[in-house]
Amino acid sequence: MNTFGERLRLTTFGESHGPAIGGVLDGYMPGIRIDYDFIAEEMRRRHPGQSIYSTGRSEEDKVEFLSGILDGVSTGAPIAFIIRNTDCNPDDYVELRDIFRPSHADYAWQMRYGIRDWRGGGRSSARVTAPICVAGALARLALEKKMPDLDIYAFTSQIGDISTSVEDEMSFSREDSESNPVRCPDAEKAAGMENLIWQLKRDGDSVGGVITCIIQGCPAGIGNPVFGKLHSKLGAAMLGINAAKGFEYGDGFKCASMRGSECNDPFAIEHGEVTTLSNHSGGIQGGISNGQPIRFRVAFKPTPTIAISQQTITTDNTPATIEAAGRHDPCVVPRAVPIVESLTALVLLDSIL
Amino acid sequence: MNTFGERLRLTTFGESHGPAIGGVLDGYMPGIRIDYDFIAEEMRRRHPGQSIYSTGRSEEDKVEFLSGILDGVSTGAPIAFIIRNTDCNPDDYVELRDIFRPSHADYAWQMRYGIRDWRGGGRSSARVTAPICVAGALARLALEKKMPDLDIYAFTSQIGDISTSVEDEMSFSREDSESNPVRCPDAEKAAGMENLIWQLKRDGDSVGGVITCIIQGCPAGIGNPVFGKLHSKLGAAMLGINAAKGFEYGDGFKCASMRGSECNDPFAIEHGEVTTLSNHSGGIQGGISNGQPIRFRVAFKPTPTIAISQQTITTDNTPATIEAAGRHDPCVVPRAVPIVESLTALVLLDSIL
Amino acid sequence: MNTFGERLRLTTFGESHGPAIGGVLDGYMPGIRIDYDFIAEEMRRRHPGQSIYSTGRSEEDKVEFLSGILDGVSTGAPIAFIIRNTDCNPDDYVELRDIFRPSHADYAWQMRYGIRDWRGGGRSSARVTAPICVAGALARLALEKKMPDLDIYAFTSQIGDISTSVEDEMSFSREDSESNPVRCPDAEKAAGMENLIWQLKRDGDSVGGVITCIIQGCPAGIGNPVFGKLHSKLGAAMLGINAAKGFEYGDGFKCASMRGSECNDPFAIEHGEVTTLSNHSGGIQGGISNGQPIRFRVAFKPTPTIAISQQTITTDNTPATIEAAGRHDPCVVPRAVPIVESLTALVLLDSIL
Amino acid sequence: MNTFGERLRLTTFGESHGPAIGGVLDGYMPGIRIDYDFIAEEMRRRHPGQSIYSTGRSEEDKVEFLSGILDGVSTGAPIAFIIRNTDCNPDDYVELRDIFRPSHADYAWQMRYGIRDWRGGGRSSARVTAPICVAGALARLALEKKMPDLDIYAFTSQIGDISTSVEDEMSFSREDSESNPVRCPDAEKAAGMENLIWQLKRDGDSVGGVITCIIQGCPAGIGNPVFGKLHSKLGAAMLGINAAKGFEYGDGFKCASMRGSECNDPFAIEHGEVTTLSNHSGGIQGGISNGQPIRFRVAFKPTPTIAISQQTITTDNTPATIEAAGRHDPCVVPRAVPIVESLTALVLLDSIL
Repeated sequence: MNTFGERLRLTTFGESHGPAIGGVLDGYMPGIRIDYDFIAEEMRRRHPGQSIYSTGRSEEDKVEFLSGILDGVSTGAPIAFIIRNTDCNPDDYVELRDIFRPSHADYAWQMRYGIRDWRGGGRSSARVTAPICVAGALARLALEKKMPDLDIYAFTSQIGDISTSVEDEMSFSREDSESNPVRCPDAEKAAGMENLIWQLKRDGDSVGGVITCIIQGCPAGIGNPVFGKLHSKLGAAMLGINAAKGFEYGDGFKCASMRGSECNDPFAIEHGEVTTLSNHSGGIQGGISNGQPIRFRVAFKPTPTIAISQQTITTDNTPATIEAAGRHDPCVVPRAVPIVESLTALVLLDSIL
Repeated sequence: MNTFGERLRLTTFGESHGPAIGGVLDGYMPGIRIDYDFIAEEMRRRHPGQSIYSTGRSEEDKVEFLSGILDGVSTGAPIAFIIRNTDCNPDDYVELRDIFRPSHADYAWQMRYGIRDWRGGGRSSARVTAPICVAGALARLALEKKMPDLDIYAFTSQIGDISTSVEDEMSFSREDSESNPVRCPDAEKAAGMENLIWQLKRDGDSVGGVITCIIQGCPAGIGNPVFGKLHSKLGAAMLGINAAKGFEYGDGFKCASMRGSECNDPFAIEHGEVTTLSNHSGGIQGGISNGQPIRFRVAFKPTPTIAISQQTITTDNTPATIEAAGRHDPCVVPRAVPIVESLTALVLLDSIL
Repeated sequence: MNTFGERLRLTTFGESHGPAIGGVLDGYMPGIRIDYDFIAEEMRRRHPGQSIYSTGRSEEDKVEFLSGILDGVSTGAPIAFIIRNTDCNPDDYVELRDIFRPSHADYAWQMRYGIRDWRGGGRSSARVTAPICVAGALARLALEKKMPDLDIYAFTSQIGDISTSVEDEMSFSREDSESNPVRCPDAEKAAGMENLIWQLKRDGDSVGGVITCIIQGCPAGIGNPVFGKLHSKLGAAMLGINAAKGFEYGDGFKCASMRGSECNDPFAIEHGEVTTLSNHSGGIQGGISNGQPIRFRVAFKPTPTIAISQQTITTDNTPATIEAAGRHDPCVVPRAVPIVESLTALVLLDSIL
Repeated sequence: MNTFGERLRLTTFGESHGPAIGGVLDGYMPGIRIDYDFIAEEMRRRHPGQSIYSTGRSEEDKVEFLSGILDGVSTGAPIAFIIRNTDCNPDDYVELRDIFRPSHADYAWQMRYGIRDWRGGGRSSARVTAPICVAGALARLALEKKMPDLDIYAFTSQIGDISTSVEDEMSFSREDSESNPVRCPDAEKAAGMENLIWQLKRDGDSVGGVITCIIQGCPAGIGNPVFGKLHSKLGAAMLGINAAKGFEYGDGFKCASMRGSECNDPFAIEHGEVTTLSNHSGGIQGGISNGQPIRFRVAFKPTPTIAISQQTITTDNTPATIEAAGRHDPCVVPRAVPIVESLTALVLLDSIL
């Protein structure tokens, strides 16, 4: 179960402190020129060093492509790539070998497999999302050819109690959000979020948040009516991101308290084109895109790694106290923004191949 | 894309007003005694006639099993079953042939396939969830053998602005919720919901809601660490239910505003067993069950079929007005409760085969 | 494992003497007009009654379509269909309940599932191939639109020691083979095969054979280079037919004793088109069609049901003698001809969707 | 379509002259100690340098494992591995850039993808089978735990017109076949095969052959009754090997001319165990193993690379002559022996997980 997608299949591998992480992207279109600079830029966006609060790895995530590309153009053969784990020192984690960190995957993994790679979270580390960003960048290169009007844009809409206004969503721009380290397009809110994170950094604590994603230019007719609904696929993808706790599209949970007469989106003709007068549906009806902007939100819990003493147990089920569970980054939500975009690109490309 | 599951695969078929709906359940364990009464009871729970507010079909959903069972015991061969659509009159829908109902799947389906079964929603009708309940009942019969301590319990936790208290969740019982037509275990809230629905019935309007599901007795170690996370599978399944708009597990979207120090679940030993002192995680950590109760919530929008005049367009893109878009049931959330339970059972059985 | 295909998925179900057999074809193109007469004709071709030697079922295999079709046109929704088992009397088989028939699936099935539908072979009966012919007919209707020049033609090329000449293969026609009950296009050989089968009928014995299939008009570029090779998919499909023992394409096993200089197919240009001067490859190179006729052969063992006393064991492992193991048809190869064609159509349509 | 298997999934990647080839094995059992020496030995068995007739690569196929292993033990995470292409010089192949080699995948690939990696056959090179041997070795390490009595043994049974006797098959041993470069267990036939190959080496020609595989100690009950028949899976796997042209199991094509009374395998009890008095079935009945030795044969065409002038066309469809199409190895059949064993191990392990 390390493969994502049906026609475009991404298989990822690797652990936080093994020799390398990487992926194999199979089913990719032949004839796509690979923009290595774009891919490198996407890798920088996800990189821990990007976070000003992080004491994360200083290494650069250098992607080495092993197959599927000839003279810079995809051939239709599977594209394999690896990223070496250069800045890793398993010894840093040796104290975690015999203890289960609260709200990490440690205990559940041990129960699932009976053996656990304790080095920095192993396969459950957020580091394993890096290959998703490589594949997502490749997917966007192909989507540029297949759906030239498509724009996938994700941003931080909430950190702690600070959140952007839903009313402003459609006017936000990538420039606004990528210009600050929290990736929030509302400058004032962004400043507040930064302050909050600095405070938590001092406290040794962490905080959750929400990422909003808006897809513009997606034509109507993408998705499936029963089990492969477009929002089911997006939801499954997003819930697979480390620390994700919830997914909603359109008006989401708010719909629960709405009336049909206010939640329905009347169809209309504007400039000769079909449109809807509102978009509570979030661009998807009956599991299939309806040509309106697709909007969804993903909730993340606070990263469980905190620099505060916590009660827990050892691997031989003895109560214990853990003082700090590894590198402390108070809020990983901004770094999940490019992952949300990457997974969205992979889902869309998979849906149209 | 009409198949659900990997090792246990349910393929469903059928349209609201075609000859029959049904399914094929493949990969089911041999040697399970089929309890036909239990299946019939589950079908009644999902049935429109169950709703006191509904003017739904009067027909009984009679399940005919075609294969995979010998002398009342499963053989390991695929179990096929059909439910005839007896109470259907496509002529009732002929006025909908040339119009797109707002916030229904009509328009998106037309754009997807270029042809549309307009008879009562066709393949996008909620009626197509009936085979899920048959398969879910079969899954529970197998789970009784495989995981005897397992209990899957879903209930209506919100309709409109009326919602049960999260604090009470773990004390609710199936008896409490199944004793009233809205399937809400809090009697007072249930009464309020009933009143609200009657009011909306008179208004010709509809309302959304939330279903909460609690799984007790699920052992630790079920799920996968990367793409097949247990909550990803549950989320994809739930988002596939008609009108679903959101999914969250554990503390869900609330986690976004929490601190790590309050959201983390400390491990402890109680009566010699591993437990956690809180369950903000909702029983899943790193995509794998941790032995604590699994809790998740599914948000539903109001059913788009209302008896109020709405603006829309015809299939040849002419603005039009629609007065009423078929049978009017103000709130379908209570009827989705057994579907949530069925899909949960299918996901869990699939995960352990 | 009762599903065939990836993009076009056929799930079959049913046992020889259960209420019905049938299938669900998912992923089928919308907008195809369903030619019910063609489907009925294909069902007749496969039907046991077609065999003049058979004492098979007298029932007609009447296909009832349950979904996915509106006003005679496919909608893109899954097409489900059933065939009732009308002429079945499980009591005819009650003597086989406690015995394992030699070279039937009885014993292996029992070891696999621990329970066995003993009624006429249950799920392992050749009867379960009928749904393949329904789906194959649907596939050919779609292929007529997608690949108008395609012609899939299978015939009996060997029964016992009587075989047609490979040199004549490309000149055989459907008219020649469908005009006699053994489906052999060489009239003289056909007569010999008929005599042989009548002799075996009298002897209570059975005989194997070979079916050759020739696909003309298949464009170059269909298939995959590594694991999904076109001949791998065809081979897996054909080996799935009851009693199949071997598959070869192009010159097949004969290649083992050939030199590269005689086995290679030189490329040339004829009438401005790429062609090859020979076709030892059988139209597939590196797993992908090369535009030349695709040729393959499938070997079948004699049907294990014979009217001759045989040594065997009972289900409680006691040595026993079996006198006759059900209805005796000395050679089922001719009836497998439409199944070969159907599976070929399914593989090709699946490969281009 | 570069993934093989369902529960145990091997995804391979890489081209003959790209940076590296490799694979990702997902679904592998945790807790297996990885025997690196065994894997290296298996790599040597497949290596071109193993062939005394070959002018193949001198490089050693050094496997680097990147993930899924901790302290020499599998963790349940995907095992990724790469083999660098060190001894490659694309310039050696530049003359093949603009020409289609007869009976190679060149032309078909070009028609499939519109672009082609011309460097030594690219993705269609036999070199891409090396990762299969790595995965096959891993599979055998797991099978040793799961099925300790299992023995998978393949050998060269035919090269050109020289073939071993079927009657001797069950008495052949791995020692006999691995002691000579053609991997034929009959010493006299092996000597003849060697002579033939030396002769062809001088002639610049090549020859085909047959590999026989015998699986002993496989318990009854493995496989599926309809589409996932055990021999279908084995057949699809074997037909995926480069140059494979045919597959048969048990008595295979010979069954076509047999009577049921001679082809059926009577059941009997020997030493209290169920057995069959003959094994024409080849250990599989109804798609499921019956506990008897599984026997199958794979036919290979002569390698199309010969050092003899051949007629062909260029990539712009101009008639041309090709003198020699790369490194010339007169018979690759012996080197396919470990691939047959590896794929068999992968199919069996996949079937029981």
